[in-house]
Parts: sequence; structure tokens; C-alpha cells
Amino acid sequence: MKSFIIYLKCSVCGEIFEHTQVQRFCQNCNAPLIAVYDYDAIRESVDRDSFKSRVSSMWRYFEFLPVIDEKNVISLGEGWTPLLKLKKFGSMLELDNLYLKDESFNPTLSFKARGLSCAVSKAFELGIEKIALPTAGNAGSALSAYCAKAGIKCFVSAPKDTPQLILKECEFYGAEVALVDGLISDAGKIVQSRSEFFDISTMKEPYRLQGKKTLGFEIVEQLGWEVPDWIIYPTGGGTGLIGIWLAIEEMIKSGLIEKKFPKMVAVQSSGCAPIVKAFKEGKERAEFWEDAKTIAYGLRVPKPFADRLILKIIRESGGFALEVEDEDMLKMMKQIAEFEGIFLCPEGSATAVAVEKLVSDGFVKREDVVVIFNTASGLKYL
Amino acid sequence: MKSFIIYLKCSVCGEIFEHTQVQRFCQNCNAPLIAVYDYDAIRESVDRDSFKSRVSSMWRYFEFLPVIDEKNVISLGEGWTPLLKLKKFGSMLELDNLYLKDESFNPTLSFKARGLSCAVSKAFELGIEKIALPTAGNAGSALSAYCAKAGIKCFVSAPKDTPQLILKECEFYGAEVALVDGLISDAGKIVQSRSEFFDISTMKEPYRLQGKKTLGFEIVEQLGWEVPDWIIYPTGGGTGLIGIWLAIEEMIKSGLIEKKFPKMVAVQSSGCAPIVKAFKEGKERAEFWEDAKTIAYGLRVPKPFADRLILKIIRESGGFALEVEDEDMLKMMKQIAEFEGIFLCPEGSATAVAVEKLVSDGFVKREDVVVIFNTASGLKYL
Ligand SMILES: Cc1ncc(COP(=O)(O)O)c(C=O)c1O
Ligand SMILES: Cc1ncc(COP(=O)(O)O)c(C=O)c1O
Ligand SMILES: [Zn+2]
Ligand SMILES: [Zn+2]
Repeated sequence: MKSFIIYLKCSVCGEIFEHTQVQRFCQNCNAPLIAVYDYDAIRESVDRDSFKSRVSSMWRYFEFLPVIDEKNVISLGEGWTPLLKLKKFGSMLELDNLYLKDESFNPTLSFKARGLSCAVSKAFELGIEKIALPTAGNAGSALSAYCAKAGIKCFVSAPKDTPQLILKECEFYGAEVALVDGLISDAGKIVQSRSEFFDISTMKEPYRLQGKKTLGFEIVEQLGWEVPDWIIYPTGGGTGLIGIWLAIEEMIKSGLIEKKFPKMVAVQSSGCAPIVKAFKEGKERAEFWEDAKTIAYGLRVPKPFADRLILKIIRESGGFALEVEDEDMLKMMKQIAEFEGIFLCPEGSATAVAVEKLVSDGFVKREDVVVIFNTASGLKYL
Repeated sequence: MKSFIIYLKCSVCGEIFEHTQVQRFCQNCNAPLIAVYDYDAIRESVDRDSFKSRVSSMWRYFEFLPVIDEKNVISLGEGWTPLLKLKKFGSMLELDNLYLKDESFNPTLSFKARGLSCAVSKAFELGIEKIALPTAGNAGSALSAYCAKAGIKCFVSAPKDTPQLILKECEFYGAEVALVDGLISDAGKIVQSRSEFFDISTMKEPYRLQGKKTLGFEIVEQLGWEVPDWIIYPTGGGTGLIGIWLAIEEMIKSGLIEKKFPKMVAVQSSGCAPIVKAFKEGKERAEFWEDAKTIAYGLRVPKPFADRLILKIIRESGGFALEVEDEDMLKMMKQIAEFEGIFLCPEGSATAVAVEKLVSDGFVKREDVVVIFNTASGLKYL
């Protein structure tokens, strides 16, 4: 298989960067870089049928991924997770087509595996030997596992109230772990002070986004190459939301699907909802959310680096940004466990609460195809 | 899709039982029942290519499974787990083809999902409303989840030193949990005293084995329809080991593969090794292992109900039964985490220790295709 990447492009000023060298973000605009591929060449090279007998991992979309040599792929079996139809919960809400993308079926039990499989593979290809990350937890365990496999030294910094299980997991993979008395933004400062490590923070390097993108490809392929009407996504740094959008653009550009976009809904906790606030106020950027507090650790991102992109996509799609209460996430976790046999993480549960709201407010209709997400195993939070 | 099941047959006396009624085991022989399918009809109906575009779960082998109506399938996305090549660990052992079947990619994070998805689906089809199980842990969480989804009442009994995380998980799914001061055999007595519940204990009902069988189908399909030379399996009740053997027999009978069998190795802990003892002593049945003690909870089965079948298969295959030390499992867990980025459970780690032994004793050769197992996520034991 062949990657059709051609270069990276700043999401704000459009400046071009080489993918053959180590890149982070556009220093002029303080904005993320987006990989660009040769979509016409991809169109010549693959069609829907090409994917049928491919590997059952996210690497089935190799043409749309940035690694040049297949030998550099660091894979632990990430992606190609089940898209489960929620029959009982769906019928309670009077929805005929409610799906859950269950990302607990991933190495280290979260969707962070996608971004980090991709980013660590590319780092390995570029010869990087040390990688660091501030984390709410799940990204830290994924980075630790992929670095172990790649033979790359790994440093992780996390808030000291991150679930113990996750911290032990990072150490078990051999990562160095530093706890901070604060939030992911404070952990970020520690990572910056360790400048011998390549900083692989959310959206501050280009390739985690590329891995997350595969979520979008999979959903569409699993729906029989149909684009859903609604994507309801638990938004911290926003990588998944942006990635899914990019995936749909790329499938259109390369002729895999007709032009259609889903409405994108960013779900946050009322204890940390910078995107929701900016959305409501009609602003282009989010403000730093003071005293962020939520049991959904992955949503405790006071100021997403990619705020502009997230807000732009939600608006362009005709979607929403919604906040939900922690208490409602907890109730919903129990409800989905007892009705559907699935142990959601709080972040995933937030998307189930959100769909309930959108239905009762009359936005989501009975026949709409709706996708919510379980971004990690609820067990990691016990 | 259509199931080709015709009846159930006692594994000892050969008596026939109807699959259209609720069955447990042969009361005359105190022995497990094996489902029999119409292999000639399957041969007419499917070939290797039929499976290519099937669902990415164990239900892709529907012809070989006992559920009659697809609508009765209770699925949470179980099976079709990655078969990962262990390159670093393989090259340390000088093995070119060492694979890990990573069963942590399953609902409730263990391979128990296979057996229980199948058995709960069939119970649902037969109208059973209450199910109980004695468990070392993982089977309990899987049963709880599938019963929740099926709307079946669930009762689980477990030794009181079962990992807390697993017990909380069962309760979260709404199961009733009773702890015993003893082993899985003592938990079994509690289950028997609750006779209003259908007892779905390992090998005491026919269909968990049928679900486990899919492990064998998947390994062979994932190896490009090649049978491996070695299957190295962590053996408690033995369902997986027996299931893989059945799968290979059935693939031969239905023309999917040429006649070839792997050498089957049953791995146990030195703290509870009834099968290893019986194997060494040339006995047909295992004796009850007194004071069973091991960190590999899934291997703490003092007297497997299917002992005769397990021993017969190991011997017929030209394989072994091997015991390993708990201490070596722990060391190996750390080694595989740091080298391969995979967090094995102790039971899985036991199979990695076993392959190391078999290589150093000269049994396993460089070019042999060897499959070991990670039967659950190591995280569940933290
Ligand atoms: C479980 C979980 N859900 C959601 C998120 C938010 O993801 P994103 O950065 O893609 O917005 C995270 C991030 O840490 C997470 O761990
Ligand atoms: C993690 C794990 N591995 C292995 C086993 C043993 O499985 P089997 O009954 O197929 O021998 C168990 C059973 O509890 C288990 O939980
Ligand atoms: Zn720029
Ligand atoms: Zn009999």
C-alpha cells in the first residue's frame, strides 16, 4: 500500500510545511497543521471495494495516512471497532437508527490509540527517539504502549487526580510519569520544560489528528458508505470531531462518497464548557475556562488549542455545542449498562445524554442516522 | 444466514439430545454435550470467500453456531480480535512466526464474551429468563453484560478475592453477586442452591463451548486459512482448548481446510495444575487439586468438568500439558508490556512463559507457526 500524502498546511494562513521533516504547528498563527493528500491519485488507485478485504484495523485506510513505509507502522490492532446499534435505548428515544461507535475495543481501551498509533509511527519514521505528552489519562496510556512497542522513550505528565489505574498502566509500559497539582494545561507546562522530548500534545503536532480521522472513514464504511445525519462527539481537545470532518471531506474529494455532511455536535460538561460558551456567544475562539471540574476527565480541557477549527466545523455543519451535567452522565452510564450491556465512560455517556436532549428538543428526528461515541472503557474510571 | 446445527451428542456415550429444548450435560456420564452440524450441507453453502465480507465479529461463522434465528443473537461486538505478530519477543526466542491472539479486544475485556454471547443468545432463543454462574471473575462480567442486553435476570457467585474491579463491573450491569470464602468449586455450590436460575457453568451447558470455538475459526482464517503448528492455551475449564480443536475438525469436515491439526499445549499454574498432573501420570481424568492458589484466577479450577476431553485432545494432538510459576508470569507481564506494548493478564502471560520453555527445550522450532493467547486485559487485575 502507498500513502498519498503531499504536504502539511496551516489551518489558518495556509502556509505549506514538508511532511518529510519533523513538524509541530504553525508558529505564526499558533494553529494546527493539516495533512493534504493527492485525492485525484487516490481516486485512480482505490474504490469502495478495495477496502473489503483489508486489514481489520485503522491502517486499512493507508492511502489517507501519513506513514510512507508500511514497515514503520507501529500497530497494536487499533481501530475497526464495532458500530453497535442501540436498539433498546434507541426505541426509548423513538429513534430507528441510533448507533454507538464503541472505542473501548482498542489497545489501552480508548480511542486515543488511533491518534497515537499514527503519530508514533510517523515519529518513528522520522527518527524521533523521545516523546512526551500532557494527558487527562487515556492519551498517556496509549502513548506509553506505542512507545514501548516502537522502542521510544516516553514521558507523561498528568493531573494528580487522574484515575490510579491509568497511571499504573503508563508505568507498567515503562513510561516516566510526573503528576501535577492542577489541570492538563499545567501538565503541559511540565512537558514543555522537558525540551529533549518531542511534544506530542493534542493538535500541536500534525499526526494524531490523522489517526483520529480514521473514525470517520470507519463510520461511513460501516454504514455501507452512508454519511450519518448526526455525529455527537464528546469534545475535549477536539481531535476526533475535526478528524471525522476531514475524513468526510476526503472521502468526497476522492470519490468514495457523494457530497453530504453530518451535523456535528460537540458535547462538553457543564463543569468545563469553553466551546459551548464560545458557540453560544458567536465567538471564533474559546476563552480559558477557569476552575474546570468534571468527572469526564477527557473533557477537562480549559482551552482547546484547535478552538477555531472546532467552532468553524460545528457552525458550517449546522450543528450545536451542548453542555451536560456530570450527574446526568452518571445516571446514563447506569442506564446504558443495565439496558444495553455496555459500560460507557463518562465522556461517552455525555453523548448519550446529549442525544436524549436533542430528541426532546425536536432537533433529531425518528428516521435520522445518529452516531454517538464510547471513547473509552468505563472500567478505567472505577 | 442459516445455522446447520442438527443435534447435541454426549462426548462420552454418544447419546443424542435435541437442540430445540433446554439441555445441560449428559447425566449418565456426567459429561459435556457437543453440538453437531450438517457439514456436507455447510460445504455446499459456504467456502473461504464467503467469509470475506462478513460482519467483523464471531457471528461471521453463523453456519457453525447454534442460534436458529439471527434475531435472537445477543451481540456486543465480540470476537474477530487481532492476531498480533510478536516481532520483538519472537526474535528474542528466535521464532519467525509467533502470534498473540489478543482477546482483550472483546466486550467486558475478555474472551469469555464469546462463550457467553453464544450461550445467552441460545438461552434467549429457548425462552430462559434467569441465568447463574460460578466464576473466577471474567465469565461473571461477560454474563452480566449479555444478560443485561437480553433482559435476562443474572446471578453470579465468585470467590471473595476476585478482583474488585470485576465484581463492581458485574453489579454495574445489574447482576446479583454473591461472594464465597473459597474457590470457584464452592461458588458452584451456591449456584446449584439457586435452582430457579439456569446454571450456565463451564461445560455444564453446551453452548459456551460453541462460542469459544470461533477462536479456532478466526485464527485459521487470519493466518490465511492455515492451521498453526502450535496452540498454547491457558487452561482452566478448558473450553477454549476444546473449542479450538472442534473448530479445526469442523473446518476439515466442511472442506474449508485440508486435514492438519496443531499440537495443543495446555498451560496451568504450578499452584493449580490438575491437568498437568493427570497428563504426566498418563491418567484419563484429573483429580481435585487441593488448596489451589494462583494469581491467574482464570486458571484456578481445581477439577475441570471436561477433564477427559482436554486430556484426550492434548494426547491426540501430540502436545503437552505444562505448568509455570506465578512469579514467572509476573516477570513476563512486565517484559511483554515494555517490549511489545501489550498489557497481558497473568493467564495470557503464562502462555508466553510456556512458549519460552518449549523453545528452550527444543520442542518448538524457528519456522513453526505458534499462537499464544491474551485471554483478558491485564488492567482488570490491577
Ligand atoms: C475518554 C475520552 N473521551 C473524549 C476525549 C476528548 O477527545 P478529543 O481530544 O478528541 O476532543 C478524551 C480526551 O482525553 C478522552 O480521554
Ligand atoms: C483470563 C482467563 N484466562 C483463561 C481462563 C481459562 O479458560 P478456559 O475455561 O477456556 O480454560 C479463564 C477462565 O476463567 C480466564 O478468565
Ligand atoms: Zn499559519
Ligand atoms: Zn453420556
